[in-house]
Amino acid sequence: MSGFSSRTGFSRTWNALSQALAQRQAQGLPWIDLTVSNPARVGLSTLDPGLLATPGALTYEPDPLGLRSAREAVVAYLASRGAAIHAEHLLLSASTSEAYAWLFKLLCEPGDNVLVPAPSYPLFEHLARLEGVEVKPYRLPRAHGFGLDVGAVAAARDARSRAVLVVNPGNPTGHFLHEGELTALAGLCAETGLALLSDEVFSDFAWAPEPDRVPTVAGRPLPMLTFSLSGLSKVAGLPSLKLGWTHVGGPPERRDEALARLEWVADTFLSVGTPVQRALPAILAQHVPRFQTALLERVRENRRQLVSARPRGASWDVVPAHGGWSAVLRIPLAPGEEAMCLALLDAGVGVQPGYFYDFAGGAFLVLSLLPPPEVFRTALGTLTAVLAG
Amino acid sequence: MSGFSSRTGFSRTWNALSQALAQRQAQGLPWIDLTVSNPARVGLSTLDPGLLATPGALTYEPDPLGLRSAREAVVAYLASRGAAIHAEHLLLSASTSEAYAWLFKLLCEPGDNVLVPAPSYPLFEHLARLEGVEVKPYRLPRAHGFGLDVGAVAAARDARSRAVLVVNPGNPTGHFLHEGELTALAGLCAETGLALLSDEVFSDFAWAPEPDRVPTVAGRPLPMLTFSLSGLSKVAGLPSLKLGWTHVGGPPERRDEALARLEWVADTFLSVGTPVQRALPAILAQHVPRFQTALLERVRENRRQLVSARPRGASWDVVPAHGGWSAVLRIPLAPGEEAMCLALLDAGVGVQPGYFYDFAGGAFLVLSLLPPPEVFRTALGTLTAVLAG
Ligand SMILES: Cc1ncc(COP(=O)(O)O)c(C=O)c1O
Ligand SMILES: Cc1ncc(COP(=O)(O)O)c(C=O)c1O
Repeated sequence: MSGFSSRTGFSRTWNALSQALAQRQAQGLPWIDLTVSNPARVGLSTLDPGLLATPGALTYEPDPLGLRSAREAVVAYLASRGAAIHAEHLLLSASTSEAYAWLFKLLCEPGDNVLVPAPSYPLFEHLARLEGVEVKPYRLPRAHGFGLDVGAVAAARDARSRAVLVVNPGNPTGHFLHEGELTALAGLCAETGLALLSDEVFSDFAWAPEPDRVPTVAGRPLPMLTFSLSGLSKVAGLPSLKLGWTHVGGPPERRDEALARLEWVADTFLSVGTPVQRALPAILAQHVPRFQTALLERVRENRRQLVSARPRGASWDVVPAHGGWSAVLRIPLAPGEEAMCLALLDAGVGVQPGYFYDFAGGAFLVLSLLPPPEVFRTALGTLTAVLAG
Repeated sequence: MSGFSSRTGFSRTWNALSQALAQRQAQGLPWIDLTVSNPARVGLSTLDPGLLATPGALTYEPDPLGLRSAREAVVAYLASRGAAIHAEHLLLSASTSEAYAWLFKLLCEPGDNVLVPAPSYPLFEHLARLEGVEVKPYRLPRAHGFGLDVGAVAAARDARSRAVLVVNPGNPTGHFLHEGELTALAGLCAETGLALLSDEVFSDFAWAPEPDRVPTVAGRPLPMLTFSLSGLSKVAGLPSLKLGWTHVGGPPERRDEALARLEWVADTFLSVGTPVQRALPAILAQHVPRFQTALLERVRENRRQLVSARPRGASWDVVPAHGGWSAVLRIPLAPGEEAMCLALLDAGVGVQPGYFYDFAGGAFLVLSLLPPPEVFRTALGTLTAVLAG
């Protein structure tokens, strides 16, 4: 044995793509980054840091669930999205990632598993593994635009499955959960005892109205334990501030037991800084509307450019989607995702291969829609040329 | 089964003491809090919150180990304490508590154990349990002023022990690690493969010089993997800012593997806010010296008052110690720690019973030395009267 645990025995070899990128950067060659996921890097999220210097910024009155005033600000934010909830059912953490860690601890013994969507952003496997928990992927069928297929969830489930995780809308697939899907999922959960973990970090970023969309499960009367996760990282484009929230819902008795246990876990870490908790009401009320309006305008414009840049009869296509910060391209199987990414990087544009997100049944590329439109347009020129041959 | 994990199945019943305190507070009766551990509550740690509003406070250039500039500030801070270390061997986290969680993940499979001191602040058992890790206590013998007895560590060790944890100086016992103890401990670790976790959060708070004291194991050439933990919570009296650090040392190959794995874990969470990382150089260089001088003066003065308040021939005594923020009293076995705490609370003074810290072989009370001297003096009047029977 290495003297180190198997749960931290991640593979640390670099793939051909990261090597090529490092090489390009070492040579000082320019490239357009269509993998960017941080709005602040592309001029989209600016906040006056003076907001952090509130009078109470350094007082320390730890409440394991988070300061009441901060939780009330989340209540008001969710109310403006149509969800009626109570501050008693909210729990703050430093990030959604930390909230996942706490939920995996809460729901799973070592060796238990959680059902996670594929394709999806590769976050859950690492988080789960660090808690001694396994993930079992369920496929989002491309035929449904990568929407939820409850049959696939049921088929992935086994005796040690404790929860099903839904990313709403999917990252990078941009499909929202719909009422019919939620009803079917609730039926499965009620029948099998699965809890629902609903990742709603991108749920404010719908590109257009859509009937029967479920923006959040918070405040919905559902028969199973539900956890709705979100936070400032995406909602406000402020990953540097480290604040996320989890709403706990479901049958009152189980909900309250979950909250009592989570409060215990939170009390062990008291992870959220006081300055950001004090600033939260102002961030949610003032910064978030401005930020989201600007981001949505940017993403819609880039999406329009992308769709209209596709030549008629091209061998590639833009996968339909309804929200989020990314676009997915379906490309021919040859020469393959990695070869295509390397060719694009050679031509000065960095994109992500589908395998990074565990796409299956085809070859895919993932593009960030966050860059400034003129930068994105330049990248599109390269992209269409390389894809054409 | 409850549907929840056993690792979150903590007992949540209130003991008689917390019930009595809640009752007293509900009745609006005043009391002097000799359990206070937050310097900001007793006027000791004041920082201009404007320090958080640096120009770079909201830029996001995540380095999983922590911003280079912040780590360099810790290097300078440790250098001023005589430790020569490199920023590459430092890792930031949101707190020492989080660093413990990461180290338990790194070193232990579920079911492995870590050797922890008793008596000690009751932190490690909860943190370990949440990681599926067990703690096995080793006794600090009172005969040595609650110093380290390597024989007790060796006796507590079993085949699943992965690390030994040392709190230097002990909380609340205030005994520093000495060179001879470290040599013996290093021998045991080298022989058995145990890693050393050295909790140095109180190490700046020595009341007087002492020969052969080990202020930190960071930068020491030791034969085993060593982790030195500290952070702003105690060093700067700023628990609200959420920043701790861990120095990794020991044989280079194992040290580097440990760092690579910890970097991976840290990257999964990216727990430390950017504003506090940017402010760290100013906090360590400007705030910490002022804060520590004021705190040490306060603690020394209260300790003097306590020692001189003891009547000659009293049935209780002040346990010898050399640093920290607390004092330990040895009291007669009858009527018992809890009864004595309840009697003191009835008389308007809140103190902690020894059992809270897992003291053995006698009855003990633990007092905070942080309150303002005039408040502490008033409390001492009550204390001596109640202890006199
Ligand atoms: C779907 C999804 N959930 C959660 C996260 C992590 O969010 P946080 O920064 O709050 O940990 C990400 C990060 O990209 C994500 O894509
Ligand atoms: C010995 C010791 N180590 C660590 C901690 C926790 O420190 P942090 O606030 O950095 O998690 C405490 C808290 O009281 C402590 O007593």
